[in-house]
Amino acid sequence: MSWSKVAVVGAGLIRFGELFDQSYELMARGAFEAALASVDAGFDPALIDAVFVATQRGTLWGQEGIGGNTVPSAIGLAGVPCTRIENACPSGSDAFRVGALAVASGVHEAVLVIGVEKMRDKSTEEGLLARAAAGHPVYNRGETAPVLFAPFATRHMHTFGTTREMLAAVAVKNHHHGTLDPYAHFRTEVTVEEVLASPPVCTPLHLLDCCPQTDGAAAVLLVPAERAHHYTDRPVFVAGFGVATDHPALSEKSTFVGLPATVAAARRAYEMAGLGPADVDVAEVHDCFTITEILDIEDLGFVEKGKGGWATLEGHTALDGRIPVNPSGGLLAKGHPIGATGVAQITECFWQLREEAGERQVRLRTGVALQHNVGGRGSGVSVVNLLTRDPDAGAGA
Amino acid sequence: MSWSKVAVVGAGLIRFGELFDQSYELMARGAFEAALASVDAGFDPALIDAVFVATQRGTLWGQEGIGGNTVPSAIGLAGVPCTRIENACPSGSDAFRVGALAVASGVHEAVLVIGVEKMRDKSTEEGLLARAAAGHPVYNRGETAPVLFAPFATRHMHTFGTTREMLAAVAVKNHHHGTLDPYAHFRTEVTVEEVLASPPVCTPLHLLDCCPQTDGAAAVLLVPAERAHHYTDRPVFVAGFGVATDHPALSEKSTFVGLPATVAAARRAYEMAGLGPADVDVAEVHDCFTITEILDIEDLGFVEKGKGGWATLEGHTALDGRIPVNPSGGLLAKGHPIGATGVAQITECFWQLREEAGERQVRLRTGVALQHNVGGRGSGVSVVNLLTRDPDAGAGA
Repeated sequence: MSWSKVAVVGAGLIRFGELFDQSYELMARGAFEAALASVDAGFDPALIDAVFVATQRGTLWGQEGIGGNTVPSAIGLAGVPCTRIENACPSGSDAFRVGALAVASGVHEAVLVIGVEKMRDKSTEEGLLARAAAGHPVYNRGETAPVLFAPFATRHMHTFGTTREMLAAVAVKNHHHGTLDPYAHFRTEVTVEEVLASPPVCTPLHLLDCCPQTDGAAAVLLVPAERAHHYTDRPVFVAGFGVATDHPALSEKSTFVGLPATVAAARRAYEMAGLGPADVDVAEVHDCFTITEILDIEDLGFVEKGKGGWATLEGHTALDGRIPVNPSGGLLAKGHPIGATGVAQITECFWQLREEAGERQVRLRTGVALQHNVGGRGSGVSVVNLLTRDPDAGAGA
Repeated sequence: MSWSKVAVVGAGLIRFGELFDQSYELMARGAFEAALASVDAGFDPALIDAVFVATQRGTLWGQEGIGGNTVPSAIGLAGVPCTRIENACPSGSDAFRVGALAVASGVHEAVLVIGVEKMRDKSTEEGLLARAAAGHPVYNRGETAPVLFAPFATRHMHTFGTTREMLAAVAVKNHHHGTLDPYAHFRTEVTVEEVLASPPVCTPLHLLDCCPQTDGAAAVLLVPAERAHHYTDRPVFVAGFGVATDHPALSEKSTFVGLPATVAAARRAYEMAGLGPADVDVAEVHDCFTITEILDIEDLGFVEKGKGGWATLEGHTALDGRIPVNPSGGLLAKGHPIGATGVAQITECFWQLREEAGERQVRLRTGVALQHNVGGRGSGVSVVNLLTRDPDAGAGA
């Protein structure tokens, strides 16, 4: 039987994009209001007794290191306990886990998890320059994200015959999904030819193999499972979660055809939930680059190692495929406002499990959704959360 | 009866100071090894199933925003779940609370909370310049820490007749305590005259009214209370905790003679523990400036509002006073490596409650210790943790 001590009773986000017209605080407020509005029976914000804010780039992208500090006041909750969670690209998914731990501890009764990230106010160049000037003596020298992921693509191609067309198929699929998601940063189709012909970034990754820099915010409301029905007849339960780290430097990696942190995080989450990859109806996974989604679907156990490219090309991960992946458009089309990303993925899973996803709704069988992020220096950390409609899902239920 | 679901079974730190010879990762390793070595019956590091790393200034002070990402590998725990907690100056004390929540949830059995901060590798000027260039559009313009706290000093002096000599008495006391603490950054006595004659920083705060910029690291090991005796016959229990936020801007403050976030955080912690200020034997509180300790001892309920200066002058907060405050030397003498500060204060409380504090040991009566930090923009967040020797301490025990 799955863990299911904690329920999601509300979730919402603001449309992702270049939000020069909104401050960090306004973005947070928009997501919070969307989450509140989504609670079927209404939700008194005064009940919230802890907030966890996921924001990754506190300093460089227009905020000091204490991003979470301005959120309670900005959303009308001055006074409430508020903690910033930062865990690289999985910041949002890890904040969700910490929020679930806080509810499960019995100390907190109503927890808001909110992810907010401002990526566009400052240019990438400014960020990189600041890091070069003041960053870590080893890890920040030239290690941009494409540089960290490209070697996985070349190695996967070499070992398994994965092709650039297969990588492109991920982008084509997720951009198609993005056209169906009103919250997505990009809502236009792309073709394989366009992906192949887009400007090179770091061989073999081209521009359309890479997710954009996006502003965004998302929020979810967590309560003890036994109190979920006060708020909605259609809660979604936290079935399990797992976090795993890996050595942060590329030189220490044990493999370049997979991400061991994802394998370990998934194993922990599946064990906690009493579920396996075959139980998953829909997944929101970390496609910061096209190659990353291919690694993910293999490392999460949806397809055999080495077959991710083929599976994508054959449509297994499309909306009507065997295991729909990234119905929201993923990081590639929906965008990747770092702290918000995981929380927005949880929101998509919430909608999918409640069959509220409109044109991009997948067919449910088991009512299990999986959410995943990986990030940090050299994919140094991975987080997997499992959500269910049925609190009794899982082995032996 | 106090909460007492979680026990501290080990705690340790490295000597604080200017640690140009140690990387962030080496500092973390030193603190971890000290915590492990402190466990009476030994502690197998392989049992640790979650790590929470407190680091505040990830980017500006020599690290990217993902400081926690390099810690597991550096301390021999690659693979373990690891999450960075950032909550301004209370980052370490909030990481301790989150670690306690993780244990109390039943999900994690052995949690390491580790605070690490590198403050000296980059100059204050570089940090301020970077913030001015890329920081928040409102909050970072000229709001250095002395600027945020000085108005509280002038107002407290105006309203209650607090004098610069009373402020200086805080520095004299804490520097004296620092001479007794082998881990303190500064281990020399200062006199009232020296404090008064030190260079002005922001009226009425002079240099010796201000804590230094310090490198440091500290670590504690948490387990479920019922398993504490596997590791030691002298565990320390988490009796309760409280976090509260306040409006972040000075213009929104409701008072300048106290910090409402501290009052609210303390109320929550006392209620959770079934304890009150009169039960506290020893306190480690946030003396980033001399005025801050005076506000703290009033807001935490140790002395009447307005009497903090007099109480200090009369020795009530000295080692042999009614309520010894900052036996470790406090932020003023021991130093304030932000993420490490709260964890180091917890370590001092652990030692005091186990009567291991040597020359600076206070006399125990109830066996209750209080740890406190406040910080963020305009003292926007406060955290209070209560620790006890006796798991049955508290009202109705």
